[in-house]
Amino acid sequence: MSEALDFQSIIITLQNYWAELGCLIWQPYYTQVGAGTMNPATFLRVLGPEPWNVAYVEPSIRPDDGRYGDNPNRMQQHYQFQVILKPDPGNPQEIYLDSLKALGIDPLKHDIRFVEDNWEQPAIGAWGLGWEVWLDGQEITQFTYFQQAGGINIDPVSVELTYGLDRIAIALQRVRGFQDIQWNSVPEQAVLAQQNLTAGDVNLQAEREHSRYYFEVADIARLRDMYALYEAEANLALEQGLTLPAYDYLLKCSHTFNVLDTRGAIGVTERQAFFGRMRDVARRISTAYLDERQRLEFPWLDDGQAAVVGEAERVSVGTEAQQIDADDQKPAAFLLEIGTEELPAGDLTQALAQLETAALRMLADSRLPHGEIKVMGTPRRLVVSVGNLAAVQADEEQLVKGPPAERAFDDQGQPTPAAQGFARSKGVHVSDLQVHEMDGGRYVVAVVRSQGKPAPAVLEQALPGLIAGLRFGKSMRWNSSNIAFSRPIRWLLGLFGEQVLSFSYAGIQSRGVTRALRVRQPEEIQVNNPAEFFSSLAEQGITLDSETRSERIREQVEELAGEVDGQAVIEADLLTEVSNLVESPLAVRGAFDKKHLELPREVLISVMNKHQRYFPVEKDGFLLPYFIAVTNRGETARTQELDLIIEGNEHVIRARFEDAAFFVHEDTRQPLQDFLPKLGTLMFQRDLGSVLDKTMRIRQLVVDLAPQLALSGEQLEVSQRAAELCKADLVTQMVVEMTSLQGSMGRYYALKSGESVEVAEAIYEHYLPRYAGDQSPNSIPGLAVGLADRLDSLAGLFAVDLAPSGAKDPFGLRRAALGVVGNLLAADRNFDLRQALQAAAKHLPCQMSDDDLEACLNFIIERQRNLLLDMGKPFDVIDGVLSAQGNDPNRAAKAVEELSNWVARADWGEILPAYSRCVRITRDLGEVYVVNEKNFEEDAERNLYHALLTAEDVERQPGSVDGFLNTFLPLIPQINDFFDQVLVMVEDNQLRENRLGLVQRISALADGVVDMSKLEGF
Amino acid sequence: MSEALDFQSIIITLQNYWAELGCLIWQPYYTQVGAGTMNPATFLRVLGPEPWNVAYVEPSIRPDDGRYGDNPNRMQQHYQFQVILKPDPGNPQEIYLDSLKALGIDPLKHDIRFVEDNWEQPAIGAWGLGWEVWLDGQEITQFTYFQQAGGINIDPVSVELTYGLDRIAIALQRVRGFQDIQWNSVPEQAVLAQQNLTAGDVNLQAEREHSRYYFEVADIARLRDMYALYEAEANLALEQGLTLPAYDYLLKCSHTFNVLDTRGAIGVTERQAFFGRMRDVARRISTAYLDERQRLEFPWLDDGQAAVVGEAERVSVGTEAQQIDADDQKPAAFLLEIGTEELPAGDLTQALAQLETAALRMLADSRLPHGEIKVMGTPRRLVVSVGNLAAVQADEEQLVKGPPAERAFDDQGQPTPAAQGFARSKGVHVSDLQVHEMDGGRYVVAVVRSQGKPAPAVLEQALPGLIAGLRFGKSMRWNSSNIAFSRPIRWLLGLFGEQVLSFSYAGIQSRGVTRALRVRQPEEIQVNNPAEFFSSLAEQGITLDSETRSERIREQVEELAGEVDGQAVIEADLLTEVSNLVESPLAVRGAFDKKHLELPREVLISVMNKHQRYFPVEKDGFLLPYFIAVTNRGETARTQELDLIIEGNEHVIRARFEDAAFFVHEDTRQPLQDFLPKLGTLMFQRDLGSVLDKTMRIRQLVVDLAPQLALSGEQLEVSQRAAELCKADLVTQMVVEMTSLQGSMGRYYALKSGESVEVAEAIYEHYLPRYAGDQSPNSIPGLAVGLADRLDSLAGLFAVDLAPSGAKDPFGLRRAALGVVGNLLAADRNFDLRQALQAAAKHLPCQMSDDDLEACLNFIIERQRNLLLDMGKPFDVIDGVLSAQGNDPNRAAKAVEELSNWVARADWGEILPAYSRCVRITRDLGEVYVVNEKNFEEDAERNLYHALLTAEDVERQPGSVDGFLNTFLPLIPQINDFFDQVLVMVEDNQLRENRLGLVQRISALADGVVDMSKLEGF
Repeated sequence: MSEALDFQSIIITLQNYWAELGCLIWQPYYTQVGAGTMNPATFLRVLGPEPWNVAYVEPSIRPDDGRYGDNPNRMQQHYQFQVILKPDPGNPQEIYLDSLKALGIDPLKHDIRFVEDNWEQPAIGAWGLGWEVWLDGQEITQFTYFQQAGGINIDPVSVELTYGLDRIAIALQRVRGFQDIQWNSVPEQAVLAQQNLTAGDVNLQAEREHSRYYFEVADIARLRDMYALYEAEANLALEQGLTLPAYDYLLKCSHTFNVLDTRGAIGVTERQAFFGRMRDVARRISTAYLDERQRLEFPWLDDGQAAVVGEAERVSVGTEAQQIDADDQKPAAFLLEIGTEELPAGDLTQALAQLETAALRMLADSRLPHGEIKVMGTPRRLVVSVGNLAAVQADEEQLVKGPPAERAFDDQGQPTPAAQGFARSKGVHVSDLQVHEMDGGRYVVAVVRSQGKPAPAVLEQALPGLIAGLRFGKSMRWNSSNIAFSRPIRWLLGLFGEQVLSFSYAGIQSRGVTRALRVRQPEEIQVNNPAEFFSSLAEQGITLDSETRSERIREQVEELAGEVDGQAVIEADLLTEVSNLVESPLAVRGAFDKKHLELPREVLISVMNKHQRYFPVEKDGFLLPYFIAVTNRGETARTQELDLIIEGNEHVIRARFEDAAFFVHEDTRQPLQDFLPKLGTLMFQRDLGSVLDKTMRIRQLVVDLAPQLALSGEQLEVSQRAAELCKADLVTQMVVEMTSLQGSMGRYYALKSGESVEVAEAIYEHYLPRYAGDQSPNSIPGLAVGLADRLDSLAGLFAVDLAPSGAKDPFGLRRAALGVVGNLLAADRNFDLRQALQAAAKHLPCQMSDDDLEACLNFIIERQRNLLLDMGKPFDVIDGVLSAQGNDPNRAAKAVEELSNWVARADWGEILPAYSRCVRITRDLGEVYVVNEKNFEEDAERNLYHALLTAEDVERQPGSVDGFLNTFLPLIPQINDFFDQVLVMVEDNQLRENRLGLVQRISALADGVVDMSKLEGF
Repeated sequence: MSEALDFQSIIITLQNYWAELGCLIWQPYYTQVGAGTMNPATFLRVLGPEPWNVAYVEPSIRPDDGRYGDNPNRMQQHYQFQVILKPDPGNPQEIYLDSLKALGIDPLKHDIRFVEDNWEQPAIGAWGLGWEVWLDGQEITQFTYFQQAGGINIDPVSVELTYGLDRIAIALQRVRGFQDIQWNSVPEQAVLAQQNLTAGDVNLQAEREHSRYYFEVADIARLRDMYALYEAEANLALEQGLTLPAYDYLLKCSHTFNVLDTRGAIGVTERQAFFGRMRDVARRISTAYLDERQRLEFPWLDDGQAAVVGEAERVSVGTEAQQIDADDQKPAAFLLEIGTEELPAGDLTQALAQLETAALRMLADSRLPHGEIKVMGTPRRLVVSVGNLAAVQADEEQLVKGPPAERAFDDQGQPTPAAQGFARSKGVHVSDLQVHEMDGGRYVVAVVRSQGKPAPAVLEQALPGLIAGLRFGKSMRWNSSNIAFSRPIRWLLGLFGEQVLSFSYAGIQSRGVTRALRVRQPEEIQVNNPAEFFSSLAEQGITLDSETRSERIREQVEELAGEVDGQAVIEADLLTEVSNLVESPLAVRGAFDKKHLELPREVLISVMNKHQRYFPVEKDGFLLPYFIAVTNRGETARTQELDLIIEGNEHVIRARFEDAAFFVHEDTRQPLQDFLPKLGTLMFQRDLGSVLDKTMRIRQLVVDLAPQLALSGEQLEVSQRAAELCKADLVTQMVVEMTSLQGSMGRYYALKSGESVEVAEAIYEHYLPRYAGDQSPNSIPGLAVGLADRLDSLAGLFAVDLAPSGAKDPFGLRRAALGVVGNLLAADRNFDLRQALQAAAKHLPCQMSDDDLEACLNFIIERQRNLLLDMGKPFDVIDGVLSAQGNDPNRAAKAVEELSNWVARADWGEILPAYSRCVRITRDLGEVYVVNEKNFEEDAERNLYHALLTAEDVERQPGSVDGFLNTFLPLIPQINDFFDQVLVMVEDNQLRENRLGLVQRISALADGVVDMSKLEGF
């Protein structure tokens, strides 16, 4: 520890390190920024084609990270060291890792990982892809390939490194938290009477005071005024062409917004509006800045650098492979390795799936017979291995269509010049031309034979396309090829047997080398054939196959859990993710303070799973104070080396739990109910008021819905109380911090506040389902409150014209509608949505028109339609039912089920026509006729009428298709007789209208059940 | 140049340099600050007793320094490197000079000077004493001993060093301006594709845009709103005990104020109000911060450091000098040198004057006979040299009073125990007691003889007191002795012949060494006797005597001017100042671009004299493009060494002139009249409106004053036009920059705008006199406008209760009143101030009460009283006249003059009594009686009455004392007869009142001339 750099020396070391590499050293910005990214030296300089390599400290202010100085890692001010590398130097990860060495962090003694983190700053229209760099579980750096800023594409891409100096110092000095970081160390011979001070010495008061200011004191109205003034000045400056002054005000807007947010004064919709406004200004600033540089003709651009990589260079194929000897024409193993910077876990899974299909297709298209194909991968490599690949392509015969036969041969059957020309152009002898019947005529056809090329040449041609065909949810550019991939490709290896394939993609030339496990030396490993490749990686401890890695991890984790007499809680998704984050897994177990077990289980698990990708350990359903982390150190790592890694991980989880404990402690200083006033400051939507207003509406609506849901008096009471409290946790600090805990915390805090278990459960359940596949509420109050909440949102937002349009659904109304439908089905409750929406509309602070209400209802029905389609129900059946009773999802769902069975019946061909005859003859009538038995003339109509009366008397389940059709079924013979024997459209009005009335009565049997006219075959 | 450090390396070098010495390295602050001082790492950390040594960069924002990137030195953003040393390490100047060496500045090749600069930041209640450090005429560092911050005394004192990084880089890299500063230099082997960039490359756009924003675009109303919001938040935070958040808002207030100021939106009085508000907040913040540190028990305080230097240590006397041998008892030369850091020029003059008197008194008090005393000094040393000082004090006999004689001896004349005890206590034999008459009684007296002590012992005892007796206009503390002096004392040297005197003062122990000329090696020079001292310093080229230095400088300067066929413009004050700034003067001549000669002469001279202490060169009354600077290099400096120094000075003057040219160019883009609307935004005083409002009042008032001043029609026209334009130059950029040019620029711009010469002169003259001893207006319009301006200020500010109180006179009303009086006298114009003030009051936007008006008039009269007293007029004469006609200064002045002569007359003893008899008998009467000749009974009264009638008929100059007394003189015999022969106070009412009426009429002869009752002897 005495050898570790002090804080100020860390900074100076980094300055020197990056200056040596060529970076310009810059200074922190003069207004509060949340990150070094906001310094114009990043935000503006990354725009445009000019090179820009810069490094600087940025003391960054994030009001909502304030913890009153109590948390080891989290402070409202943290120190960043920011580096921008434009263009990508080709090996930024390696340069970065060397900088850690310069600081005294030996990568061989730590677990250093690149964990996917896609950075986005919506307030300034900026995003990029990259990673958090983890040092023993602690995020110490944000590493981003900048793709856009101010809504403008970054070209060339900038690499952004943001060191978290505080965390690095904590790790390096092995201290408990920021307070203990040694800031300076006075040299022994120093002449000045200065003490050694810690970061706590110099910054603790600021942490405490600013935290209190941001969380408790800042005057919301005044901050809103400031925001408005800043925004107005930004616009004024922009109008005057003053880019940088405008940018300063944008930064002030951003900081002020952050303070308002920390004060809990920003509602969900308001947030979007703020972001939209800031983004707009950011966009105009970026454009103006870029225009100015353009006007100056990009003065920092060397002529050489200006040259843009042409399309031709983007995907280029290497030197033509030499003709192979006959001897070598034996099949051989083929290997492709795409070496990348760390792929996100999800992208790895996707890439492997695509690669298998694509490789098979490529080989087929290339006419290369082959043995087994294996596709494997780790975060740093995608590998295709093919056994017994033919050394030479199969020969190919291709029929090429020529001129029509009558023009190809003259009357004598001799080939015309047209035929000769065609033959010549195809390289065949004219006598080999054939005549085929094709495309509705007779044509001359040449059989073109092409000889198979050697496999290496074919592969070199095909491999770039294979790689180019991979697609990712989000992909990024990084170098001047401007090719997009999940993460940068850094090396390519192709082997056909002993032969190294030469091709290039995205500016990378393939070579006969692979790379070792990160930070191991030597970095590059020569491989001479596929077998050597596999053995080399195995030697490195790299497990190429994901499944195998997962299994290894599971075993290790379970073993470590067993050692402390516990069981690991292994979620499948997490296991897959963790497996995709390492090449050479080694699980380590850490412990945490038992006191943290007092936190709610959901909190502990959320923190371990989501933040840290740790596996929790439990016993008899109760968590134990351990966690298991999976490192990339490989199983060969020596035990004593792991101390540092475990210590680091334990530090992180302690900070995380202390943070959570801080929140829970703060939150439980008052009963849940006391948060209600604060909900009043949380805007739901401008025209619909605060979340508190919404809460009050939900409570009223629950009363209105009670009869439909047949709530007991007690249930209603519970529902009302739960409705009142259901959103209160939104303004608790724990939920502000981890939104995914909404509901869970509400339940927890409700119980702590002395609410009944029923109320607490209903609070929790009203959010269910939270995602596709999540469970529905178990309790009726949970159901009731959830319905009321969603119906209020749906009705309200449709009323103020904020219905989702296109792909945009900022309020998650699709999910809300699906929740309504799903929960009613799960609870098997019939429920009239129209009536419920009318009730909801009644409580809104604005008018809801009938049109809006119908649009809203149809929006929900559409969701059910999609749901039913996904379940494989016939679309016509769905249409028929939803048209008739879409307003009641549960009834409709059952009706669809029943009708699906009916239309599958053998006698459906009789049932439907019988009914459709009734409808067809009557559907265009403008009025409904009354049937008078005395006006019947024929037996057939009389019989039918009596049968109808019987049918009408049958007691049916409302909406039931079975009820309808089982009632209808006996009428069919009478219907058929009727139409066979009775002429309906007689001239006598009385007679005709009586008969039509009869048929109308039959048609009406389906009313409210199904619109049979929608069915196929009607 | 290729060897010079680039900008970023300058920073890194300074960081390393100060870190090595023990400084903590800090970061720039996250909100716009005008200087590193505002960073809480300075502003707050200098408070309290804890040690604090810190260094950091501060990119500082000064909106009004923006020059659109056009000026070589002046930018809205400049880079400071800030160092705080608390406590004073004892040799901060030397440490600082070494840091320049570390940067590659060889002090031996440059002229480095410490030029007095007393720093004050009224907005935060902070001040300190110190210097600008000049490198070849360029200010490169501000060096301050911090005395107060937030209104709190700094104890221990902090040394504040503020490097101007841009200027250092310009000097070091020898480039023309900030644009050309090399910011980075990419190492040859750098891996990143980065270019070398200049400060212009990275900052020019910002300079241009922010300048335009600050000067032209910023919305005044919105900025005022921001200010109000910040202030409110600062107060809110303070109420909540949040010191640092409050401080952030104070900084935002300060920056916002600066922007408003740059926009020209802040009036003089408004400025004071803003400062007052900010200072109040600053004071509360400082107190809160200090309280918090106190509460924490000053954790950074070592126990050892906590010990406060006791009074005893403050002034301590060295070891008692040994008894000297009889051989050595010969007189010897005595030398005292007080070695200091560079004294301000004025302080040096003051100190030398005091030292001469004080040394004489000390030697006399010490009974040390001596030869010639010489007192000499340079900025770094005060020297007292005494020839032939006696080696031993003269012996002394002292009479000590004992008990009363009757108690000392019994009836037998034998000494009582009282006498014996007294004799014993005085160390004399009882038989040696004498009896003396003293203090109105007879007492026993002992004759105590003390033998003279050796001179060294006496001097060692006395010297600390000698130094302590020196007084300065502003003095400062620097170390834990908390003794105040003009600047820190760093060494003390006392010699008596060969003997080194040992004493200490302010924590400094005297030693037998002096110090060399700055930056010369060796720093310390051993001296064995006074002669060696003088020869050592002479060898160094140091001229100890100020007069001699001045003469040397005059010769050098004249010679250099002659070389270019010109004459130096040598102002006496400047010569004295310059002489006091150097120890070893060497004048150098620089040149500047001829084009700058187009600037107004006043501007050029102001810049050269005031900013740079240069002597201008002229020929035939026109300036030549040269300047002469006086360096501290000494005449022995080699010529080739001077190139760098001349180059540096030329760089500075170019920047200064370009700055001035920028202003003049901007200002002359429109006629002077067009600035009037902007005057409307310049607040004069809240209740009295803008300066434009004031201008309009002046114009009206000029019309009202015209008759009194007997203006011709033409003069009135000129006066009105001049009045309209007289303040317009206040909002021109040149005057905003150099306030001392107000009036001069108005005249210049008026002529440029096509106004008549008379109008232009009147604009200039209305400010006259600008300082004590300055000239008065020559023209009547100049007089008229000046009077109107001052009377408007006086009346207005008295009307709104802003009369000066105590020492406070923020509006300079004393000077205004003196100007009114002085100008009327100079113009020899009689003028009724009461009437003029009434006219002024009429135009005010507020009511002026009669009481206020009289108070205002009396305030002006008081000024004249002081003036007359200073002129040596008898106070009673002044009183007498001013009581009677103080409202007309010119008449009053003449009257005083005349009366002074009268009271000096031999017959005054007759004149005054004659008059006083008349007054005494009547002054208590409540009414004035009418004289009726018929009621006289006696001749004496009849004669007196006729004499009176004759006297009353004499035509007299109004207010003339001669007129009055010459008229009165002939009445004296009649008066005396009257009182001898007539009984005034007879019982008969008619008779008595007639006689009293007669005497009243005589008394009244003095009305409006003099109140004779105020005269001595009355």
